Amino acid sequence: MRYTIALLAGDGIGPEVINEAVKVSNAIAKKFKHEITWTPALTGACAIDAIGVPYPDETHDICMAADAVLFGAVGHPKYDNDPSAPVRPEQGLLLMRKKLGLFANVRPTFTFPSLIDNSPLKRERIEGTDLVFLRELTGGIYFGEKGRKDDGETAFDTCTYTRAEVQRLAKKGFELAMTRTKKLCCVDKANVLETSRLWRETVQAMEKDYPEVTVSYEFVDAVAMRLVQWPNSYDVLITENLFGDILTDEASVISGSMGLMPSASVGEHTSLYEPIHGSYPQATGLNIANPLATVLSAAMMFEDAFGLKEEAEAIRAAVNKSLEQGIVTEDLAKKGATVYKTSDVGDWLVANL
Amino acid sequence: MRYTIALLAGDGIGPEVINEAVKVSNAIAKKFKHEITWTPALTGACAIDAIGVPYPDETHDICMAADAVLFGAVGHPKYDNDPSAPVRPEQGLLLMRKKLGLFANVRPTFTFPSLIDNSPLKRERIEGTDLVFLRELTGGIYFGEKGRKDDGETAFDTCTYTRAEVQRLAKKGFELAMTRTKKLCCVDKANVLETSRLWRETVQAMEKDYPEVTVSYEFVDAVAMRLVQWPNSYDVLITENLFGDILTDEASVISGSMGLMPSASVGEHTSLYEPIHGSYPQATGLNIANPLATVLSAAMMFEDAFGLKEEAEAIRAAVNKSLEQGIVTEDLAKKGATVYKTSDVGDWLVANL
Ligand SMILES: CC(C)[C@H](C(=O)O)[C@@H](O)C(=O)O
Ligand SMILES: CC(C)[C@H](C(=O)O)[C@@H](O)C(=O)O
Repeated sequence: MRYTIALLAGDGIGPEVINEAVKVSNAIAKKFKHEITWTPALTGACAIDAIGVPYPDETHDICMAADAVLFGAVGHPKYDNDPSAPVRPEQGLLLMRKKLGLFANVRPTFTFPSLIDNSPLKRERIEGTDLVFLRELTGGIYFGEKGRKDDGETAFDTCTYTRAEVQRLAKKGFELAMTRTKKLCCVDKANVLETSRLWRETVQAMEKDYPEVTVSYEFVDAVAMRLVQWPNSYDVLITENLFGDILTDEASVISGSMGLMPSASVGEHTSLYEPIHGSYPQATGLNIANPLATVLSAAMMFEDAFGLKEEAEAIRAAVNKSLEQGIVTEDLAKKGATVYKTSDVGDWLVANL
Repeated sequence: MRYTIALLAGDGIGPEVINEAVKVSNAIAKKFKHEITWTPALTGACAIDAIGVPYPDETHDICMAADAVLFGAVGHPKYDNDPSAPVRPEQGLLLMRKKLGLFANVRPTFTFPSLIDNSPLKRERIEGTDLVFLRELTGGIYFGEKGRKDDGETAFDTCTYTRAEVQRLAKKGFELAMTRTKKLCCVDKANVLETSRLWRETVQAMEKDYPEVTVSYEFVDAVAMRLVQWPNSYDVLITENLFGDILTDEASVISGSMGLMPSASVGEHTSLYEPIHGSYPQATGLNIANPLATVLSAAMMFEDAFGLKEEAEAIRAAVNKSLEQGIVTEDLAKKGATVYKTSDVGDWLVANL
């Protein structure tokens, strides 16, 4: 088969980790006789530098024309100290999500046996953790009306959700739950927020269509606790945009494998795959960043966007082998062991697919 | 001195844990020659049962007339399955906070050496943790306009903050930081929310009045991560209402001493002291609930509301001794050790002040 993939490397270590994912993807395509056309495009700080906006129209067109998008990371320290600067890399991210209709962010958290001791949690707490958040990504307080009143003395943000927005996200949650242990947790703050009450009543009304799925409803503060106490008690969780932002990041560090976690954003027009880590500006150009999360994001792309499960499994098997054999970058290297470069890890994966 | 304390025992185990805090407070008052008058009042589910509202006017008057409020817990399972029920215990809580002007919720998280192994985190991660959240408690999305549009198909909640609201909370944060290690972290989502940008610019403008305090600004998602990774890197944190709800609960479980954490809510008219745990309905009347968080909340009240540091320290010393000697309820009892009843622990504290 032929696939066109939009390649948005972004800033910082983005280009370096993307490079390894491309190498591995090309190797797997060759092995399984697929043909991939990569169409690179600008996004983030590098797009601002080049043409003044973080998500150029041309980039959008390239994404819309592609079968999937592979994304690195965006962000540059020169924007860090002034979150009210008129043009910022994150705005590109939000615009991209909205324009591509990427309404569901899929964020798995799982453990690698060989990395379990990296977790800040005790082994008995984290062992067996395998959960997935579905975070709503194009609605809520991120995109509602916001501004100032009273000569700038009062600020406001509006959180809005429609029933249809909740339904399409929840539908993905129920469907995902059906492919796993059939447990779905709806995370809200229905004791305080009207939008949460809409979420809850909408999900409750959908339960009858999925009689096999056991649904629980938990408040966001309770989930923030239980994620640290018993992360392995969760399976699929669905939640709104801002709660999802906070909880998926919390979940990502408990596994001890943060540098390895892939993610997908899916929706109306296309789907996008990216590592959950950031642009790690200090490491830019040093060839030391861990490429595995991006490689695993490519694996998600093969499986979910193209339906190529075998190809995805082959990539994952190679990653597991590299972890077991210690072919890893400095963030994962055991004390005294050889430290591999970003490109070394990619080369090794290609050779061991 | 004479003190009048409004006593809001609330629901579930509330009355039982409050009872022990009263015993200990009376004993300390006797020892230091103070006179306490307790004025009990209804709140929560028991107030709904008795007179149909969760925070009766009479209760409000009693709180306003008192020197401080000691609070147990509210909530009853009969309200759990329907967060949109017209009258609910939590509404009383929000009304009470608003009417009493309790704009700052003070939530310390610290460790007890004898309990450190109860933490879900590894010892090296949690050791030395001693942080305090100041959560804004009477503004934000909790109290903004909310409702439905489009025949109920669209729901909205509004988050609003004024500069003055941020200033009074931040002022308490700077002042608290001055009494500790002079480190203040302002938690926001200024890359997305206008209210967060108001928070950040307001706190930035106040920095010059506290030149000794080192202020950092972190995004709420990053803090949700670092709280699990390196909780001991924080000291004083200030944040808005909803972020505070999520993060203080997350912080409370990392110490392993959740059942012991006190809290205070302070503001315009009075101050209120309460354990952070809930009403634990399953344990109601069984005399098994851990009273120590409520006893430590009373200690906070002696120190902060009445300026009685020595009295507070005497209570804390007795609590520490009870922990060391294993005079504890079932939640903290070591395997095979004697389990003490709620009232036994209170009696022991009184005898060992
Ligand atoms: C950069 C920021 C706007 C973004 C978000 O809040 O969605 C990020 O934290 C994320 O989770 O992808
Ligand atoms: C019960 C609920 C309304 C309340 C809140 O969200 O403030 C509780 O979670 C708390 O933190 O005291």
